[in-house]
Amino acid sequence: MSEYTSVSNSIIIRIKLDHSPGGLAKVATRIAELGGNIGAIDIINVENGLIVRDVAVNTSGEEHADQIVDAIKEIDAITVVNVSDRTFLLHLGGKLEVISKIPIKTRDELSMAYTPGVAKVCMAIHKDEKKAFNLTIKKNTIAIVSDGTAVLGLGDIGPYAAMPVMEGKAMLLKDFAGVDAFPICLDTKDTEEIILIVKNIAPGFGGINLEDISAPRCFEIERRLNELLDIPVFHDDQHGTAVVLTAAVINSLKVVKKKAKDLKVIVVGTGAAGTACTDMLLELGMKNIIGCDRKGALSKDRKDLEGPKKIYMEKTNPNNESGSLTDVIKGADMFVGLSGPGVLSVEQLETMAKGPMIFAMSNPTPEIMPEDAAHYASIIGTGRSDYPNQINNVLCFPGIFKGALESRATDINSEMKMAAAKAIASSIPDENLVEEYIVPSVFDKNVVLAVTKAVIAAAKKTGVARRNK
Amino acid sequence: MSEYTSVSNSIIIRIKLDHSPGGLAKVATRIAELGGNIGAIDIINVENGLIVRDVAVNTSGEEHADQIVDAIKEIDAITVVNVSDRTFLLHLGGKLEVISKIPIKTRDELSMAYTPGVAKVCMAIHKDEKKAFNLTIKKNTIAIVSDGTAVLGLGDIGPYAAMPVMEGKAMLLKDFAGVDAFPICLDTKDTEEIILIVKNIAPGFGGINLEDISAPRCFEIERRLNELLDIPVFHDDQHGTAVVLTAAVINSLKVVKKKAKDLKVIVVGTGAAGTACTDMLLELGMKNIIGCDRKGALSKDRKDLEGPKKIYMEKTNPNNESGSLTDVIKGADMFVGLSGPGVLSVEQLETMAKGPMIFAMSNPTPEIMPEDAAHYASIIGTGRSDYPNQINNVLCFPGIFKGALESRATDINSEMKMAAAKAIASSIPDENLVEEYIVPSVFDKNVVLAVTKAVIAAAKKTGVARRNK
Repeated sequence: MSEYTSVSNSIIIRIKLDHSPGGLAKVATRIAELGGNIGAIDIINVENGLIVRDVAVNTSGEEHADQIVDAIKEIDAITVVNVSDRTFLLHLGGKLEVISKIPIKTRDELSMAYTPGVAKVCMAIHKDEKKAFNLTIKKNTIAIVSDGTAVLGLGDIGPYAAMPVMEGKAMLLKDFAGVDAFPICLDTKDTEEIILIVKNIAPGFGGINLEDISAPRCFEIERRLNELLDIPVFHDDQHGTAVVLTAAVINSLKVVKKKAKDLKVIVVGTGAAGTACTDMLLELGMKNIIGCDRKGALSKDRKDLEGPKKIYMEKTNPNNESGSLTDVIKGADMFVGLSGPGVLSVEQLETMAKGPMIFAMSNPTPEIMPEDAAHYASIIGTGRSDYPNQINNVLCFPGIFKGALESRATDINSEMKMAAAKAIASSIPDENLVEEYIVPSVFDKNVVLAVTKAVIAAAKKTGVARRNK
Repeated sequence: MSEYTSVSNSIIIRIKLDHSPGGLAKVATRIAELGGNIGAIDIINVENGLIVRDVAVNTSGEEHADQIVDAIKEIDAITVVNVSDRTFLLHLGGKLEVISKIPIKTRDELSMAYTPGVAKVCMAIHKDEKKAFNLTIKKNTIAIVSDGTAVLGLGDIGPYAAMPVMEGKAMLLKDFAGVDAFPICLDTKDTEEIILIVKNIAPGFGGINLEDISAPRCFEIERRLNELLDIPVFHDDQHGTAVVLTAAVINSLKVVKKKAKDLKVIVVGTGAAGTACTDMLLELGMKNIIGCDRKGALSKDRKDLEGPKKIYMEKTNPNNESGSLTDVIKGADMFVGLSGPGVLSVEQLETMAKGPMIFAMSNPTPEIMPEDAAHYASIIGTGRSDYPNQINNVLCFPGIFKGALESRATDINSEMKMAAAKAIASSIPDENLVEEYIVPSVFDKNVVLAVTKAVIAAAKKTGVARRNK
């Protein structure tokens, strides 16, 4: 039970210890026996000679946390005052603030930032709309738009429940790339309504990050909006994931010394992200990719395929393999999972070619836990921040949007995406690459700079940059 | 020409002075002769013994600024390096930033703020949507929504040109009340589309500030959205203006020692703001209000009145006076202008009852300039920050939204608005009231606190508060 304790399941137990000696030792012992990991222990205050302490404990989840708290309650010398969840504490009141760059402390400042001074700034933009890029937040601001239909691996949880994720993305855009971003969660799943809304809220933004919108609607929404708007519209679940996976694959191939064209690749989950990943892997030179959905391999034998899935099938599976995942995974060199928890079993894994590359990106719970795949796989990547080789979009989207904004790009095209993937991959020197280090740390500041630079260069080269300084 | 020099028309002239003595004195003299007001003079650097200085000059507008710059260029000892506009400098790159409240510097912080930890916060909201008020920015965030059709007194300048004003409002909400606000400028003027958009972007917000949307569409948009949404929707141009005007009128009546019921009042401009002001003045006890539009008084004799204007006429003008503004303003005690520059002439003013109260709120240029009304009026209020008695919505909207958010109100109703007006008026003790000080300074921090408190109390009293702590 204690196998996967994590700070994201960290609780703070506030306890009051009576005068008898050894109380804290008993608490620590019980927590250790139950497999919890103790973090900081703070003294909060002393009441009538009784010490009140906060004990932070990493657990493996709610059930585990309850078990630990119950066990502590049974210790005679201890009163549990309350228990709080560190993750919930961190989210209280939301995670973003909108602040002004300049103070308004005096009448003079007010009359320049607001009326009457603001009027001439308005009129300058009214005369020349392009000036909005210089004189408003459009210059550096992205809308993060979601309808909450495909949030992490949690599915259709709606716009309210999606907000914490969108706020998190906005934090990352600011902290990692200095890009201002604001979450807009939509109370509609209707394709036409979403297109209408995003088109019409666009004037104040320099780019649109579509997020966690389920397939197949996301394809049409992104395509149509890119046609309608002169700012880039980028569905991060598709392209951000594809860019980072591609970076990971570029480096993995160096480590395992294989060539893209020689590999058999299974992609499980042919929705938004799976399709975009497949497109970039094809572009990278892969020849034998087989997509799988819940019904098995996408092959010519499937009579139920239409729309995006039919298009997917037509560009993949050259040997027309059909059957279940268990059937087609035999002998495969690489597994790309963008589906759900536990989709890949150890038994299936063991039928793959020796030392396969496993990218199990379902969030928060991967298709196979790294612990369970380690004995057979050569390289394992997941979407999680608490394991090595995190295939995390945060390696891509801050730099890609920064580059798009700085070059004032009208679009984020394939060349810009591939440039971003190569920049991420190159940020680890070849001699430093090992199985557990094929993607750079998300905290490596050089990645954002490298991606930004590569994206700007690609935007200029492909003619979508409106700013060439 | 120099009569109305203002910091909002302030320029910075960068000059290089040669070695001959008295150069700076010559510059200062020419500026003074032309009526410019010199502010700070900074030394920027010294190049080959030549001093480079920045001279800030308040002017009365673009033409005046050009004249001053041209005159300085003619001085032998001086080279003008460049001229910049202080107001434009302040707006460069926009005026807002979206920042994260908590740092993401470590893997642990990332795994709590974002994946995998964020998933359980999402699921808690998914199980109970109301938790969005505690666990997301909805708790303290307002959308400022405009279609750019009635921006200040500038008219229909569109969503791009409206952004600087909406950004300014967001700054004020944050700086004055700690409320986070984000501008959403809409690229549509269609009533149904605006309603659909605002309804669907609402999940992430605790309130909607409609702004600068022209009449009569604004009435239906606000009414319908208030029906559709369980968060308050408040058209600040209507109600914010009405609240602050009402506060000003409450205090003016004390100064001039008159009663609301005895006054003849002319309201010029019966659009969004004019209608809301009239409603609150009626509520305050006024009996004889006459509305005027471009065609003159709204009376029963007018056959062209329909919709909101017909409704307006039916509740006003009890003596059915008709004709032009010149006709009906005779003998009036109070003028309320929400129309356009220069609508009230000195000749018309002089036909009013002795010592009339003039509220000339067109922005940026009032219906009559205070200088031109001073010889006849008792009290003069404008919308400008550079004259006394500024009828500025900033006295109202930060506190009213803060109060609505803190009480988690479903609505901002009449009782809350009147409570806000009285709180603003009361923030100046009666003994301190004089003709030039009938509304508090926008920088008086006590106003926001008083309004917030009064609005929370009124929300609880009228049953629209969802939080009663």
